[in-house]
Amino acid sequence: MPYVNIQITRDGVSAEQKAELIRATTELLVRVLNKDPATTHIVIQEVDTDNWGIAGQTVTALRAAK
Amino acid sequence: MPYVNIQITRDGVSAEQKAELIRATTELLVRVLNKDPATTHIVIQEVDTDNWGIAGQTVTALRAAK
Amino acid sequence: MPYVNIQITRDGVSAEQKAELIRATTELLVRVLNKDPATTHIVIQEVDTDNWGIAGQTVTALRAAK
Amino acid sequence: MPYVNIQITRDGVSAEQKAELIRATTELLVRVLNKDPATTHIVIQEVDTDNWGIAGQTVTALRAAK
Amino acid sequence: MPYVNIQITRDGVSAEQKAELIRATTELLVRVLNKDPATTHIVIQEVDTDNWGIAGQTVTALRAAK
Amino acid sequence: MPYVNIQITRDGVSAEQKAELIRATTELLVRVLNKDPATTHIVIQEVDTDNWGIAGQTVTALRAAK
Repeated sequence: MPYVNIQITRDGVSAEQKAELIRATTELLVRVLNKDPATTHIVIQEVDTDNWGIAGQTVTALRAAK
Repeated sequence: MPYVNIQITRDGVSAEQKAELIRATTELLVRVLNKDPATTHIVIQEVDTDNWGIAGQTVTALRAAK
Repeated sequence: MPYVNIQITRDGVSAEQKAELIRATTELLVRVLNKDPATTHIVIQEVDTDNWGIAGQTVTALRAAK
Repeated sequence: MPYVNIQITRDGVSAEQKAELIRATTELLVRVLNKDPATTHIVIQEVDTDNWGIAGQTVTALRAAK
Repeated sequence: MPYVNIQITRDGVSAEQKAELIRATTELLVRVLNKDPATTHIVIQEVDTDNWGIAGQTVTALRAAK
Repeated sequence: MPYVNIQITRDGVSAEQKAELIRATTELLVRVLNKDPATTHIVIQEVDTDNWGIAGQTVTALRAAK
């Protein structure tokens, strides 16, 4: 442990950005909680904007209204 | 908060149905728990029927046996 | 299926409110997606306000600042 | 990886039963998917019976009706 | 209940392997915790190797370095 | 969005450490993905060491063997 699950909307996040999220989140857990990187798992799950709701509306609709 | 994760099988649920799930779930959390819609997140994750098991069998197999 | 995970802050939500969340969420999934109540699972997880962050602060801190 | 999350009702499951769930689930992932035990994480989360709903009712109510 | 979520990397796991994971995990929960298979849900979520990090690196990078 | 779930063993992590995890994770998501802090939710779930398994053993057992 730890296990970190990062859920974000499917917005074409690049492999480099994902790698940086994983690197920096692991580093953060080492710095703050002194965790062992070797047993630190980070999982990024990407979600369609039709499948994510905030304030009762889909992110698709919220973005269209901007 | 709150955060609600709805996992369903990948059955071609329409954008309209997803929007209604998000609208109605948010409304429910406002009605029952007086939550702020602006900080209420709903995430729908769709799962292949090969990847969902009930009673020890995949949903694909259960449906084929019907 | 479906499986619904509802995460809320630990604010003394009553057994009656939880029962209503479960009843109404199940009813919603029947109405919108025609799901079978018998295989519809709802899980409510309560989270301490020190353990929930919005806008970079804990809910404990956000509430104290109000 | 993998990461396995096992959610069960809070029914006084013993430390021995938890250890057996963890041992056997890991063994299963090695056997079926040839996974490395050293990077296989199993997390058991226990949920109050008021907080788990099936068929629109809490497990507390379902058990009381038996 | 129970509900089991199995997260694995997207490595072309076959339908047969998924069915065996579901069968054996359900059997395990019956054996160790005497659970009812009919209300035992198993969900397998597959994650791209760019989206899974261990020891601060993506599985894609870790595998490339082998 | 995003929503981040951080699962760690129940090791007496202080309120200050939790606040720093939340602050730094939010900052990271702003820096790497340009996310809006106001809609960024971080949830920390603490798990008993009997309930977390690595390499087929509970963390309780692994620590006792050190």
